[in-house]
Amino acid sequence: MMSQTSLLSEPKLPHFLRLVPGAVAAPCGFQAAGVRAGIKRRGSDLALVYSVAPATGAGVFTTNRFPAASVLLSKERVAPGDLHGVIVNSGNANACTGIEGYRDAVRMAELAGDALGVPARSILVCSTGIIGERLPMGKLAEGVAKAAAALSPGGGEEAARAIMTTDTRPKTVAVEFELDGRPVRVGGMAKGSGMIAPNLATMLAFLTTDAQLSPRALKSCLSEAVEKSFNLVTVDGDTSTNDTVLLLANRQAEAGEITPQHGLRRFRAALGYVTTYLAREIVRDGEGASKMVEVTVRGALSEQDARVIARTIANSPLVKTALAGGDPNWGRVLAAAGRAGVRLRPELVELYLGRVRVVEGGAVCNYPVREAQRAVSGTAVQITLDLNEGAHEASVLTCDLTAEYVQINSAYRT
Amino acid sequence: MMSQTSLLSEPKLPHFLRLVPGAVAAPCGFQAAGVRAGIKRRGSDLALVYSVAPATGAGVFTTNRFPAASVLLSKERVAPGDLHGVIVNSGNANACTGIEGYRDAVRMAELAGDALGVPARSILVCSTGIIGERLPMGKLAEGVAKAAAALSPGGGEEAARAIMTTDTRPKTVAVEFELDGRPVRVGGMAKGSGMIAPNLATMLAFLTTDAQLSPRALKSCLSEAVEKSFNLVTVDGDTSTNDTVLLLANRQAEAGEITPQHGLRRFRAALGYVTTYLAREIVRDGEGASKMVEVTVRGALSEQDARVIARTIANSPLVKTALAGGDPNWGRVLAAAGRAGVRLRPELVELYLGRVRVVEGGAVCNYPVREAQRAVSGTAVQITLDLNEGAHEASVLTCDLTAEYVQINSAYRT
Repeated sequence: MMSQTSLLSEPKLPHFLRLVPGAVAAPCGFQAAGVRAGIKRRGSDLALVYSVAPATGAGVFTTNRFPAASVLLSKERVAPGDLHGVIVNSGNANACTGIEGYRDAVRMAELAGDALGVPARSILVCSTGIIGERLPMGKLAEGVAKAAAALSPGGGEEAARAIMTTDTRPKTVAVEFELDGRPVRVGGMAKGSGMIAPNLATMLAFLTTDAQLSPRALKSCLSEAVEKSFNLVTVDGDTSTNDTVLLLANRQAEAGEITPQHGLRRFRAALGYVTTYLAREIVRDGEGASKMVEVTVRGALSEQDARVIARTIANSPLVKTALAGGDPNWGRVLAAAGRAGVRLRPELVELYLGRVRVVEGGAVCNYPVREAQRAVSGTAVQITLDLNEGAHEASVLTCDLTAEYVQINSAYRT
Repeated sequence: MMSQTSLLSEPKLPHFLRLVPGAVAAPCGFQAAGVRAGIKRRGSDLALVYSVAPATGAGVFTTNRFPAASVLLSKERVAPGDLHGVIVNSGNANACTGIEGYRDAVRMAELAGDALGVPARSILVCSTGIIGERLPMGKLAEGVAKAAAALSPGGGEEAARAIMTTDTRPKTVAVEFELDGRPVRVGGMAKGSGMIAPNLATMLAFLTTDAQLSPRALKSCLSEAVEKSFNLVTVDGDTSTNDTVLLLANRQAEAGEITPQHGLRRFRAALGYVTTYLAREIVRDGEGASKMVEVTVRGALSEQDARVIARTIANSPLVKTALAGGDPNWGRVLAAAGRAGVRLRPELVELYLGRVRVVEGGAVCNYPVREAQRAVSGTAVQITLDLNEGAHEASVLTCDLTAEYVQINSAYRT
């Protein structure tokens, strides 16, 4: 039942791509650092990504009606280009902080610009952590100086560590492909975690590349990659106040300009690999999650229908708790599908847990119970609902809902 | 901040109403019984409500696209009238059981009709419990005979006990008012529970009255009462496969015909009291719930806008877990409001926890932290979001999300 593009299994590395170390600082001309500014109670909490050469940027931002100050600022700055870096703090989201919060974000970029000797407007800003508290600007000023001093091509892992909140591990990856016999690289880091859908705690992803390509191509490649990766786990409109995906391209690779006829397919594959890998890491590290769950709805009359139903199933606490308990409770899956608000014909519906068909014609069929139990007992669960009406499908990736999740979120203040 | 119609506080009994014992069997001419048929592992699991005289019926049913067999059957039968009763089993929902399941529901009504000496078509059927398994018809046949033999005017409490699934206590109430110097009664019982929104496990409510009123008036009174009670906790489209509210009126009260000029206001108040009382009991007994939470959104441009935002807040696991932890985490409330998909102007938004204003102009204000903590620490929490844009408002009642909820739902098979 698994489709070729399933996020459940590890993404396949195409033969022309190879993994390289360095994360966001892997592409030529990028440096990174992660330091402790003292915003969180412990651990590093300030990351800096820097490009020596001015870079083109592209971004995808939260659709939440209460966007954080950093989101407003980065949105304004990402389009014009000539960017030199991103400063990111964890421990404080600088959200719902009004005009003062916006000024703090502006100041944060100024601090980084001054420390790096570049214009403040060339710096993007991201924040994640507690909502509604002002940033500790004194600590931040010291931290930014420290981060600028710590910048190095080997700082990618430290930077990834500094953006974590309830994440249990840093999430990084970088790949390389050849063009004109020269290497081109794409690197990235991300942080989760929250329960992913339906209430994503802030998801941030930072991507870098030394590829030479037009701002327009960059934007379209990023949109496509996000649609097939992060958006499968977050889903439009279900985003936090701070969710952001940023891509900086500094054109420092020695390979020539990437065009549709020259290297674009490889670049897309590289960016797709990086974003898929990171999206998957976010789900795997979901708060208290014990398993990854992919919900696929196919045979729908439209992709929108398929998406709405998949999302309703994936967001159902009753489905998620059943999965935590290893219970092949297909009844809860159908009940969730039935209340998604999409017209469907129950008498045509089939449901699969893994490869086991448990429902046919809208009613339970005589299925091997043990195999169904096995299908939901592992760390990767595939649920497939076939509406048998049309040719459209959609998948959503989520995780189970455990008692540990509740404990984490009763105690942690976002 | 509490509105007059808040479900958080106990409903006020108007001076012309008084509580009476008997539950669904309190109105004249009704009898009830609750017995063990052996469908659940233990406890009583079959309830019968019987009216000696033929009764008029009205019903409100789930909008789920996978309605249970009993829902399909009861929907067909409730309108024509001349009803004699309802047979209800717990432990098995008879949902997603296809044509065979529908036949089982038909047979269940036949069994009850035969035992009572009334036509099968005069019997309504409800089921709640595990989805996707066939009803044990042999056990049911024995149980129905037992229930018919046990019918009595004092059987209301036993009947309420027999419809429970994960409920921790039976939910019943009955009231009386005078008309023409004669008593008129309305009785009821209900079962929850699930987490209420967003994934209501089956909610069933059975209401009885001996009032004399037209089928049309009955229907309109029930719709109005459900809208102001059960629908505030379940919300359209968020219903399980089996949700049902049934009202039987057997006209056995000696008071005269109820008309808009004669007694309708009192009848409405009585029905409203019973439904509000039961809806509140369902939330109070929500699975693993430690507190009741009312989310009110006001100042909206439309009631629909207010409802969508209130529902998104009430359904947010991050908000619900924060409340379980007694954390005045207003940031999560705003973040949920922001992703509800409704246009709003952040700079106008105010948020209150209890009576404490914590957000003004879309940003946190200088609020008394201890008072805010107290406001979310009790067993009844009021959250009020004021959009300050229009004159419409809506409220939704929910409960917090505890680790206990997850444990119950990982283990229990609905």
